[in-house]
Amino acid sequence: MFNVLKQIPNSRFYSSISVKDIIKTRRVGCKFLMKGWARAIRKMKDNIFVDLDDGSTYQRLQIVIPKNKIADTLSYGSSFEAHGTLVNNTNNQLEITADFITVHGQCPIQEGYPFAPRKIYQSDYVRQYLHMRPQTASFSSLLRLRNQLSIATRYRFSEDGFIEVNVPVLSSNDCEGAGELFIVKPENKNLIKSMASHKHQCPFEVFFNNQTYLTVSGQLHLECIARSLTKVFTIGPTFRAENSKSRLHLSEFYMIEAEQAFINNIEELLSVIEKTTSVVIKKLLDECSEEINIIRKVNTSSNEYDINNIMKTPYEVISYEKACNVLEKQKNFTKPVIRGKPLTKEHELFLVQYNGQKPIFIIDWPQDLKPFYAKALPNNDSLVSAVDLLCPNVGELCGGSVREDNYNVLEEKLSNIGLQKKLDWYLELRKFGNVSTAGFGIGFERFLQVLLNIQNIKDTIAFPRYPHNCKT
Amino acid sequence: MFNVLKQIPNSRFYSSISVKDIIKTRRVGCKFLMKGWARAIRKMKDNIFVDLDDGSTYQRLQIVIPKNKIADTLSYGSSFEAHGTLVNNTNNQLEITADFITVHGQCPIQEGYPFAPRKIYQSDYVRQYLHMRPQTASFSSLLRLRNQLSIATRYRFSEDGFIEVNVPVLSSNDCEGAGELFIVKPENKNLIKSMASHKHQCPFEVFFNNQTYLTVSGQLHLECIARSLTKVFTIGPTFRAENSKSRLHLSEFYMIEAEQAFINNIEELLSVIEKTTSVVIKKLLDECSEEINIIRKVNTSSNEYDINNIMKTPYEVISYEKACNVLEKQKNFTKPVIRGKPLTKEHELFLVQYNGQKPIFIIDWPQDLKPFYAKALPNNDSLVSAVDLLCPNVGELCGGSVREDNYNVLEEKLSNIGLQKKLDWYLELRKFGNVSTAGFGIGFERFLQVLLNIQNIKDTIAFPRYPHNCKT
Repeated sequence: MFNVLKQIPNSRFYSSISVKDIIKTRRVGCKFLMKGWARAIRKMKDNIFVDLDDGSTYQRLQIVIPKNKIADTLSYGSSFEAHGTLVNNTNNQLEITADFITVHGQCPIQEGYPFAPRKIYQSDYVRQYLHMRPQTASFSSLLRLRNQLSIATRYRFSEDGFIEVNVPVLSSNDCEGAGELFIVKPENKNLIKSMASHKHQCPFEVFFNNQTYLTVSGQLHLECIARSLTKVFTIGPTFRAENSKSRLHLSEFYMIEAEQAFINNIEELLSVIEKTTSVVIKKLLDECSEEINIIRKVNTSSNEYDINNIMKTPYEVISYEKACNVLEKQKNFTKPVIRGKPLTKEHELFLVQYNGQKPIFIIDWPQDLKPFYAKALPNNDSLVSAVDLLCPNVGELCGGSVREDNYNVLEEKLSNIGLQKKLDWYLELRKFGNVSTAGFGIGFERFLQVLLNIQNIKDTIAFPRYPHNCKT
Repeated sequence: MFNVLKQIPNSRFYSSISVKDIIKTRRVGCKFLMKGWARAIRKMKDNIFVDLDDGSTYQRLQIVIPKNKIADTLSYGSSFEAHGTLVNNTNNQLEITADFITVHGQCPIQEGYPFAPRKIYQSDYVRQYLHMRPQTASFSSLLRLRNQLSIATRYRFSEDGFIEVNVPVLSSNDCEGAGELFIVKPENKNLIKSMASHKHQCPFEVFFNNQTYLTVSGQLHLECIARSLTKVFTIGPTFRAENSKSRLHLSEFYMIEAEQAFINNIEELLSVIEKTTSVVIKKLLDECSEEINIIRKVNTSSNEYDINNIMKTPYEVISYEKACNVLEKQKNFTKPVIRGKPLTKEHELFLVQYNGQKPIFIIDWPQDLKPFYAKALPNNDSLVSAVDLLCPNVGELCGGSVREDNYNVLEEKLSNIGLQKKLDWYLELRKFGNVSTAGFGIGFERFLQVLLNIQNIKDTIAFPRYPHNCKT
């Protein structure tokens, strides 16, 4: 054994308390140490009032500092710590009467700090400063609510026996068939040279022995695991190499994907989807409706909708064909609807509006509009058991399908698109202990857009990646 | 409003119950529908006994089927459903007396199913069948325990006020400086051509305007957010383009990374790290010790260690220099220790063994062995406030540091390594409301190796990526 070691005694640090815990525990009369940033400063005759923000909650705690105790360097944006007594002030608000304060870092706003005190900025402006954006009140809220959305999602699934799994980012297949792939190789040229072989010379093949992409969906891998654990889900990054300026697309975005064995019909899949969206929104409103309402009030738009609509199940269901019937009666679309072609965003949003700004399922899609793995309808094999869930603000929030579970049918489909060899493992899943499965994917950032009425998806994630933007 | 819609009535599906819930609720005498796979079949005179496995738990439920009711097609590996009554049998075990069963998919093992009944396979063999590996008892357990590890990790952090955030996979910087990067471009050549500009012609630059890599660590991004939310963490994929055959490396692996503001000394960082590892292991043993013990018994190795060692804090602490003193006294290493050079895996494992197979912190590292952002020691600027946590089985489990928070010192460091322009945003964090921060990263798969005494990291993740392996 060592004789040269020191040990860290437990709890030897005089620890500070967060604003969230101060407000939760309300231990008036006790002394506390608090650390954070000064977001507002009001100088009165005898005292200075500072709003301390430590990011633990959207609420800020007022620190009252006698004038003789304040350091000159404490100004808007400074980081500081305050030690003092928690009191209930005359307005029945909690505040700290400071014994002493220490400034950690000043904030020389005249040297280029992008956010001035008491000013509200457009999100386009704030987005230019991604590294400091979390310091704004609204983006700090966004980050907390984003965390709450993942907590609520995990809650919904684990309550129902779903097990969370990780699916790979690096993949050798394009499971959506949309062809908008990023391709990957080692940067190091010497490494590539040293790994090259007779069989694999291409720089994109030598490392893994095949071309390797960033995943567009974890579904095929989820299917493998659902055929053992029955109910599985994942929350993870997915990628699209698409030159889009849309307010609804990112090059890197998160998907909630779930797959369940022993489902062989679209109705049961729809009920799993609507349970997901409705339970998650309910949980969020139960846990943090105040912060949600603050953000929703800021994000006003021409197309208002009631967030409670998402909780009201069952959702309406309409076939692709009938959706086209409705859309054909409208004459003022930028692009008219064409049967057999995808719906445009304008079409999707119209259908949602037509449905009273409530979610709506579109089912019975033409096979050509959906990936190879969607199962044909029993009575019409030009249509497949697939679904899009359309929601206010974003249109398509979720897509899903019952998966083709017939070995011979799937073999033929794979053969037709030249994937029989590449996806032999996927086909083989249908050979041993075969079961029907169905599943879906929800765009995580779009879900946040629906929840908070956010117009631009770039304002739902800390470091958005989109064409020409990956610096910070 | 639509007049063509149908609606999905709630709970219209006659739903099945999982093995886990059957065992938990023990409603003897009630009728249930169950769905899963036949993992063992014993034929007796009047009845057939089938172990049903649905992946919800490591436990299986015995289904008793009167001989006249069984379908011929039910065999080992088949998927099936059983309807029947829950009873306590003469051994006081729960079982289902079946009224009827339906086979969903047969399992023709003679046609190439890789897992024969009642046989235990080496993990190297099972790993050849990644798509069916979840169907084995031990890998099914691994997947559930992997989920439990992420649940326990999230529990530990949220109990302590840490907020989970997502950091980007696509990144324009190599934050570790190790140079083992994967580089990314769109696959579509027409897209690349259409996005090329006067300034950006290189296929690896046109999409994002700069070379784009797969992240090796989310730390720089976590620092941005910790400077607003104070305590943050993330669990996500990270990447290394390294031609390694090691039992401890993957090309794609998960990291638990945490960053905390207002920490300026290594001792406090060590206490946050050891709290993480010890609380997480304790939570796991509280929640699923039976399943953990089953797996640990299978994974015997020459270097046994007691998992309870991980829970006993404080951990020992030794400086890099003193670690070298200890290692220099040993003569039989494959590679001798060289002062100023990294420790080899053999050195790391020796130090852990020397410490009684208990975790040990190595601190006070030479600056050259750690990334640019590690803060120099106050009394010796050739050393930095960085730490490696070494553990049984894996050696380095976790690395962390106090971050350089002095604007001028960091500016000089960045300038010396040519990153001043690329990381101007990272430097600027030290300008406005500056605070000290510290953080660490724990290899998620290595944590599973420690927990379960797993020798090969490829057996801790469903679809491992490593050189020459990314097919499934």
